[in-house]
Amino acid sequence: MTSEFEIIDRYFKKKTKQTALGVGDDAALINVQKNYQLVTSSDMLVENTHFLKNTNPSQLGWKSLAVNLSDIAAMGASPKWATLSISLPKINHAWLKKFSAGFFKCADKFGIDLIGGYTTKGPLSISITIMGEIKKNEALLRSGAKINDDIWVTGQLGLASMGLASLQGKLKLPPRIKIKCIRALETPIPKTSLGSHLSRYANSCIDISDGLIQDLRHILKASKVGASLFLNDIPCEKFIHTTKQYQFLLNGGDDYELLFTAAKKNRSYIKKIAKKTNTPVNIIGTIIKKKSLSILSEQGKSVKFNPKGFDHFA
Amino acid sequence: MTSEFEIIDRYFKKKTKQTALGVGDDAALINVQKNYQLVTSSDMLVENTHFLKNTNPSQLGWKSLAVNLSDIAAMGASPKWATLSISLPKINHAWLKKFSAGFFKCADKFGIDLIGGYTTKGPLSISITIMGEIKKNEALLRSGAKINDDIWVTGQLGLASMGLASLQGKLKLPPRIKIKCIRALETPIPKTSLGSHLSRYANSCIDISDGLIQDLRHILKASKVGASLFLNDIPCEKFIHTTKQYQFLLNGGDDYELLFTAAKKNRSYIKKIAKKTNTPVNIIGTIIKKKSLSILSEQGKSVKFNPKGFDHFA
Repeated sequence: MTSEFEIIDRYFKKKTKQTALGVGDDAALINVQKNYQLVTSSDMLVENTHFLKNTNPSQLGWKSLAVNLSDIAAMGASPKWATLSISLPKINHAWLKKFSAGFFKCADKFGIDLIGGYTTKGPLSISITIMGEIKKNEALLRSGAKINDDIWVTGQLGLASMGLASLQGKLKLPPRIKIKCIRALETPIPKTSLGSHLSRYANSCIDISDGLIQDLRHILKASKVGASLFLNDIPCEKFIHTTKQYQFLLNGGDDYELLFTAAKKNRSYIKKIAKKTNTPVNIIGTIIKKKSLSILSEQGKSVKFNPKGFDHFA
Repeated sequence: MTSEFEIIDRYFKKKTKQTALGVGDDAALINVQKNYQLVTSSDMLVENTHFLKNTNPSQLGWKSLAVNLSDIAAMGASPKWATLSISLPKINHAWLKKFSAGFFKCADKFGIDLIGGYTTKGPLSISITIMGEIKKNEALLRSGAKINDDIWVTGQLGLASMGLASLQGKLKLPPRIKIKCIRALETPIPKTSLGSHLSRYANSCIDISDGLIQDLRHILKASKVGASLFLNDIPCEKFIHTTKQYQFLLNGGDDYELLFTAAKKNRSYIKKIAKKTNTPVNIIGTIIKKKSLSILSEQGKSVKFNPKGFDHFA
């Protein structure tokens, strides 16, 4: 019989590179650099709420960590450490082996030390706390957007929600797009590299996890401003325009792209760091004084949209 | 319809006292004092594994945080910050109100800021990451026990597991003891005050969450030593001796007392800080060179015991 301690030892105890004391005691110890702040965020992924039953455990391991890295990127910070708690119905070595392989593939790619692990019996769920560092007073908050700021996004929006709808049989996609959308859903790439360079040039930032509209509204509310978006400038698959299924673009969850605002004078700097970090970026609108959100078509007409985003209880 | 964001706002967003940025952005920001390390640990409490269905939500809120504080105490550190993720089957305002009240009752008593909150739909489970500070190089590890160290414990052992057995109808207890045991199970008191003073005097420390034997064995293994315990010196209810139900004393989980080892010369200091922090302490045995664990009766005979402790998968 394998115990919960043996599971940690076998699957989740790996040499750390930037940690004073890792997995194996009552708690871990880390040193935060002088003049830096610790940045931290926690979340939980639950089977049937955040991922489908029988999701590939390796991709789930990757995604569990990736979505947390995205939160640190959205603060303009550099992620460094993570703790992981898993509840699973029974000890399943094949599952654990694949899950931990996917988790550490992501951890290694982004330079993260796993510093705490806990496993227990229960319905399948995964809880991660991510920690990183940022220079004091340089964090990018949701509340910093200024009137006339450009509104930027990384990558393409709507892919993950189209992938999910396709897996659920609710959307028929051309094969090439289907593969791309499912990949975006299953193994999102957090924009940590761009994120860690943004704080000098951007005024506010959030990661798009619950849909563009909802996450932009978090910035607008916190910054007490409004926004005007140009539908045709929001980067997405042409399929969305040809089928007019804008709900994926505007309300689809799980994108993990960065949405940030910056003064117009910083355009060339932002394009430079985007190029340096190999991150596609686009300007999709402007921050305005009037506290409302409007989306304009190519003809300058106001487009109707669902103001709500993704809510796990809805 | 209440959204997950409104739940956080209504129940889990409280003014912080020692935090640069609390709940409400992509991540929180904290400043670690100069010459201090960040100490952190995560765990997860799952319904039917860690607590019974219909457990009083207020007591559950208290306990979820208290058991994490105990891990920080076991490092000799001072707990300061926590993040909380909850999955629950549906939005239940009465439950959330009571749970958050219990959580903050504990947080306020021990001076903890809640700096991150996440709620989602799913089977009832609670995941907490606790963070604290300790002066560099002063953390109490499991690996520091020295030969001839006294072995100390705080409080009384076995109460919580007797409380659980009683609630499950597996153990009949006299009314006075029953009340005490159920209180120990439902609202454990972490020994943070003693813990934060121990690092100067103790060589190793762990908190007893999975039973005395199992947790002592973690110290013995990490420190490459053995131990000899004196059964009659282990503090407990007389009921255990009269009924000879030593499994509660030796293997019962959920005690959250501290188990630590210290040089004999430090006895008077330890008694002094125990008195100052109002924490009962007792010496229950000695660390020995031979890598084995024995428990001796009053007559000096070796007592047989179950070497295993609590395992959530067993």
